Amino acid sequence: MSIAVIFGANGGIGQEFVKQALKRHAVVFACSRPHSSEAASKIPTIKALENGLVKVELNPLDDHHLKKFSEHVNNQYGHVDLIVNAIGILHHSEEIQPEKRIEDFDLTSFINVMQTNAATSALIAKHFIKLLKQSNTQTAIFASISARVGSISDNRLGGWYSYRASKAALNQVIKTLSIEVARRNKNTAVIALHPGTTDTNLSKPFQQNVKPGKLFSTEYSVRKMFQIIDNLFLEDNGKFFAWDGSTIEW
Amino acid sequence: MSIAVIFGANGGIGQEFVKQALKRHAVVFACSRPHSSEAASKIPTIKALENGLVKVELNPLDDHHLKKFSEHVNNQYGHVDLIVNAIGILHHSEEIQPEKRIEDFDLTSFINVMQTNAATSALIAKHFIKLLKQSNTQTAIFASISARVGSISDNRLGGWYSYRASKAALNQVIKTLSIEVARRNKNTAVIALHPGTTDTNLSKPFQQNVKPGKLFSTEYSVRKMFQIIDNLFLEDNGKFFAWDGSTIEW
Repeated sequence: MSIAVIFGANGGIGQEFVKQALKRHAVVFACSRPHSSEAASKIPTIKALENGLVKVELNPLDDHHLKKFSEHVNNQYGHVDLIVNAIGILHHSEEIQPEKRIEDFDLTSFINVMQTNAATSALIAKHFIKLLKQSNTQTAIFASISARVGSISDNRLGGWYSYRASKAALNQVIKTLSIEVARRNKNTAVIALHPGTTDTNLSKPFQQNVKPGKLFSTEYSVRKMFQIIDNLFLEDNGKFFAWDGSTIEW
Repeated sequence: MSIAVIFGANGGIGQEFVKQALKRHAVVFACSRPHSSEAASKIPTIKALENGLVKVELNPLDDHHLKKFSEHVNNQYGHVDLIVNAIGILHHSEEIQPEKRIEDFDLTSFINVMQTNAATSALIAKHFIKLLKQSNTQTAIFASISARVGSISDNRLGGWYSYRASKAALNQVIKTLSIEVARRNKNTAVIALHPGTTDTNLSKPFQQNVKPGKLFSTEYSVRKMFQIIDNLFLEDNGKFFAWDGSTIEW
């Protein structure tokens, strides 16, 4: 039975990943942060399976939540075939914009962006690497949504210090993890994905700078990323793909 | 009058940078964290100039300390010619080693390593970018000690998740800053430096794996890095140099 787990399922891209994963997988776990603080005290909350979908509320930075949830998946199914981490923020509050100049750099924002964008993938992998190993598909997949602006080589415009640094850190986590799964799992490909500029809340304040035809719907962006996932081989382990299937330099 | 500011001046590499900077610069500020909590309450503590050396105690993650200190330098000299950030840790306590496998990943350690290794350079630049612009040398220099294991492209062995991610994040900060100074300062080169494996407390637990002749004294490593600094041109802005002058891919 084919099992997918999507993190950041309340975001624009994550939501669409859940939708399109339901067409491919028997069971899709859709994980997001709890809506209310009341719910937060009970997490992880794992709802009942309904039409292939299991809604999960947890804090992806909390080891205990991730451990509990991975144990649940292990007890129910014994494996996972696909993990997508679509958790990401540009900044930690709507009032504060990403840095235009170095004077805008703020340590608290940096840490917040860094743990959300980079640490979540490491923590998820920590608790799910063994479940990916138990997959019976040809290639189990761990995919993280990164961003082209995280590429150090490709950085031409500057600015956005914390976001850029967090995605570079994420890319390094992905590369490091790909080396570990090649040794331990032998059936898993770990990849970073650039979704293109997609019409979500994250990109909303910056959409006026996007060239016509270059702002994607989440449906299109996720469809393109699923084309990559559907056709992935073990040799692709450790790569950084753009939505169109081209690879991005680090 | 030629002014240098060295951060992390209590570490093996930083200490040596201070020593060798004294031969080149009229005034060298040697900045380190305060020894005692009593001292911490008074920081930044700026000692009197003695034989070209000014000892400074401050917390490099504290905006207020850095602001106060940069104002002091500005009032005294009005510019800075060379900044070296030699602050760095492999892990946040001696008992905890860098991760061998993803199960060792710990969020608190990650944040600690990340802010020490990556955020300090951004915060220092935030408060000193204008003082570098005031330099009269041909090329004002902002140099951060990075590490080859921070290179994503060069990552073959895996492990050390937090340290690798923090140095990749630092490299992205350096690259981003290099773009900003090219636009604003026009006289400044921002670079990342790989010191080689150097005989310091940081590398001590791992020295048994180093090939003969590949463990450098701090004197040698810093001498080689100063060769790069002494011969730097504006065109080198944004590069990542190894101790031997070769460039490292991101």
